[in-house]
Amino acid sequence: MTPVNTEFAKLPGSYLFSTVAKKVAAYTAEHPDAEIIRLGIGDVTQPLVPAVIKALHSAVDEMGAAETFRGYAPDLGYPFLREAIAKNDFKQRGCDISPDEIFVSDGAKSDSADIQELFGRYAVIAVCDPVYPVYVDSNVMAGRCGEYDKETQKWSRVVYMPCTEENNFVPMIPAERHDVIYLCSPNNPTGTAMKKADLQRFVDHANETGAVILFDAAYEAYITEPDVPHSIYECEGAKTCAIELRSFSKNAGFTGLRLGYTVVPKELERGGLSLHDMWARRHGTKFNGAPYIVQRAGEAVYSAEGKAELKEQLSYYQNNAKTIRDGLVSAGFTVYGGVSSPYLWLKTPNNLNSWEFFDLLLDKARIVGTPGSGFGPHGEGYFRLTAFGTHENTVKAMERVNSLGLSHFMA
Amino acid sequence: MTPVNTEFAKLPGSYLFSTVAKKVAAYTAEHPDAEIIRLGIGDVTQPLVPAVIKALHSAVDEMGAAETFRGYAPDLGYPFLREAIAKNDFKQRGCDISPDEIFVSDGAKSDSADIQELFGRYAVIAVCDPVYPVYVDSNVMAGRCGEYDKETQKWSRVVYMPCTEENNFVPMIPAERHDVIYLCSPNNPTGTAMKKADLQRFVDHANETGAVILFDAAYEAYITEPDVPHSIYECEGAKTCAIELRSFSKNAGFTGLRLGYTVVPKELERGGLSLHDMWARRHGTKFNGAPYIVQRAGEAVYSAEGKAELKEQLSYYQNNAKTIRDGLVSAGFTVYGGVSSPYLWLKTPNNLNSWEFFDLLLDKARIVGTPGSGFGPHGEGYFRLTAFGTHENTVKAMERVNSLGLSHFMA
Repeated sequence: MTPVNTEFAKLPGSYLFSTVAKKVAAYTAEHPDAEIIRLGIGDVTQPLVPAVIKALHSAVDEMGAAETFRGYAPDLGYPFLREAIAKNDFKQRGCDISPDEIFVSDGAKSDSADIQELFGRYAVIAVCDPVYPVYVDSNVMAGRCGEYDKETQKWSRVVYMPCTEENNFVPMIPAERHDVIYLCSPNNPTGTAMKKADLQRFVDHANETGAVILFDAAYEAYITEPDVPHSIYECEGAKTCAIELRSFSKNAGFTGLRLGYTVVPKELERGGLSLHDMWARRHGTKFNGAPYIVQRAGEAVYSAEGKAELKEQLSYYQNNAKTIRDGLVSAGFTVYGGVSSPYLWLKTPNNLNSWEFFDLLLDKARIVGTPGSGFGPHGEGYFRLTAFGTHENTVKAMERVNSLGLSHFMA
Repeated sequence: MTPVNTEFAKLPGSYLFSTVAKKVAAYTAEHPDAEIIRLGIGDVTQPLVPAVIKALHSAVDEMGAAETFRGYAPDLGYPFLREAIAKNDFKQRGCDISPDEIFVSDGAKSDSADIQELFGRYAVIAVCDPVYPVYVDSNVMAGRCGEYDKETQKWSRVVYMPCTEENNFVPMIPAERHDVIYLCSPNNPTGTAMKKADLQRFVDHANETGAVILFDAAYEAYITEPDVPHSIYECEGAKTCAIELRSFSKNAGFTGLRLGYTVVPKELERGGLSLHDMWARRHGTKFNGAPYIVQRAGEAVYSAEGKAELKEQLSYYQNNAKTIRDGLVSAGFTVYGGVSSPYLWLKTPNNLNSWEFFDLLLDKARIVGTPGSGFGPHGEGYFRLTAFGTHENTVKAMERVNSLGLSHFMA
C-alpha cells in the first residue's frame, strides 16, 4: 500500500473562516433583512487602476498576434519587471538589490508556503503568535513541526514568539533553539509594524547565530511611520541572513490577478550552499513563470500613471483604517494597528473571548470581523477588522458601533 | 547554523537546454549568416485564438469596474471553469468525473512537481526512462530518491521503466517494489501513446497492489488513434487508483498564460486518508488560485467558437508533425511518434550518440533539436524534434534534410 504523507492528518481543521461563514449564514437565515457589513477578510474591493487595465489589454493584444505572441516566460520572471522592482522597491530606498536577486512568482502565499523547501527536515522554525497560518501549516505538511497539542494549540517542534500588549506586539528573540525565523511587518493580524531598531536586532542575531529570517513585507505600502523599514534590506547585514517576500495584492489590488516576488540575495549561504541558487533551481524545476500579461500589469504599477492612481487607491483604504480606528476609539475601545497597516487589532472589552465578541458584534451591529484566537493562542481576547471594505460601509459600521456605545459589547 | 535541504546538492546540473543554447550560440558566432531552424523546445509559436483573446479582454474589463471586480478566486477554481472541464473533457467521453474532483492550477508543471507532497517520505516512485525531468527532480528535492550514480545516471531509490524500440516505447510494470507510478501518454519525449489495453493493465495492477498512478495527459489533444484513451478514467477502476494531470498549454497554446488542472477522484484513498481531501488542503494552504482572467480564457477554450478555432490550430501543428515524420522517413531515418503526439523520436543513424547527432544536424542542416540522452539513459541514441515551429520553417527543415540525404548524418 502506497505510504501517504500522514503529516496532513495532524493538521487541525481550518475552521476559522468556515466557522465565520456558517455563523453569518445562520444569522442571515434568522434575520433575512439584516444589512450585514463584512470587515473580516483581507481581500480588496476596489477595481484595478486604469494604468494596470491598459497594460493588461495591451499585453492581451500582443498574445493574439503571431509577431508579438509570448510562450513560456523566463522561469525567474521577465527582465522588464525584475528591473522595475529592483529600481523602485529597493534602489530608491538605498537597498542594494539587483534584478537577478528577484524571483517573480504567482503571489506571496505560494512563496511563503514554498520557501520552507530550502531548509532541512530538522530545521526548527520560530513564528509570531498570533500568526498568518500558512507559515506553520506549510511546515507541518513538510514534517517539520512535530505533534499538535489541542490544549495549548501549539506544535511540539515550533518556537512561538508571543506578540502581546505587554511587548507592544513586537516579537522578541526566543531563548529556545531556532533556525528559521518568520517575521511579518506590518503584521497580519496585529496591524503593528516593527521599528528599524527592533528589526536590526533580529538581523544582528541571525548573522551571529546563522539563523535565516523570512521577512514577509506584503503590507509594506501601508507604512506611514518614518522609523519603520519598508524592506529588511534597509537593515545593515540583512543580505547575509534574510529572504524577503513581497506581494502585489495589497498595494495594487492584485488578489485576483496573482503576482508576487521573493528576494534571495546572492550573499545568502548556509552549510556551503547558496540559497539564491537553490531557489533558482526550485523555481526552474517546480514552477513555469507568472503569466506574461500579469507581469506587464506588474510593470504598470511602477509607471508614473500607475503610481499616481495607486497612491489614490491606497489613500482610500488608509482612510478606511483611520475611520475604523477613530470610530472604535471614540466608542471607548482599546485598538491597535491601522496606522501603518490595513488591519485593526481590537482588544475585546470586559475580557470577552474572541468568539463571544464575534457573536455580539454580529448580533448588535451586524458587523463581521475575524476572531483573534483563529490566528493563535495569544490572539485570544482580540479581534481583527480590515480596511479593505468600501468607504461607505466602513463609515456605516462605525456609526452603528458609536450609536450603540461600548456597553452594548460587554456581555 | 540553519540546516538547509541538502537534497538540492545531489541534483546533477540541468545541463540539457543550457548546453543546447551554448552550442547554438557558439555555432552562430562562427557562422553568423546561418539561418538556424529551432525544432528543439516544447513551446508553441501560434498566437492565442480570437475566442480566447476576446474572453481575456472582457475579463480584464470586469477587473477594471467596481461592480464586476474579482478578488481572491476560490482556491480550487471558479465553478464556471470546473463545470466546463467536467462536461467537455470527461462526461462527453463517458468518464464520471464531477466538477469538485477538478482542481484548477497555474499549469501542469506546478502540479506534476507538487503532487508528490501527497506521499510519504519513503514511498518509492517508478518512472519511464526516458522521462520528463520534473517528475524525478521534484522527488529528489523532497528527499525521496536516495543517491545519484553518475555512471548509470540513475537514483538509488527510483524504479525505472525502460521505454525502448524493443517494447514499442510502452512501459512495463516493474518487478521491483514501487508505490507511485508516473505515466505520461502521449509521451514526452518519445511521442508514443499508450493503447487502452496497456493502460488498463497498469490500472488493474495499481488496484491490486495499492499503488497510485499519476497520469500526465498534457498532450491528449494530439491523439488520433482510436484505441488510445484520452483520459485514464476511460479505464475501468481508475478512480480508485489514479490522479490525472492536464494542461491548457498544448491544446490551446497557454504556455505563457499558465493554466492547468488536476483530477483527484473522491474514491481515491490510501492508508485511510482521502487523497482528494489532502490535495484540497494542499491547494488551500499553499496556493491562491489561478487568475480570474486566465480562468475565463480557459472557459473560452470550451466555447463553440474556441473549439472551432483550436481545431484549426491543432491541425496546423499536427500537419507539422506529419511533415517531419514524412520528411525523415523519406530521407531514410527510423522515426517514432508524431502520430498521436507533437513529438518525433528519431533513432540516430549509424549508432551515433545523441550529442554527436545534435552536432551533425546543426552543422549540416542548421536544425536544432534535443538530444534524447538528456531525458534519461535509455534516451541515448535518440533525438527529439517538435511540431511546434512555424509550418514554413518545418517544411524548410525537411527540405534541407532530404536534399542532403541520410549519408550526411552518419558520421
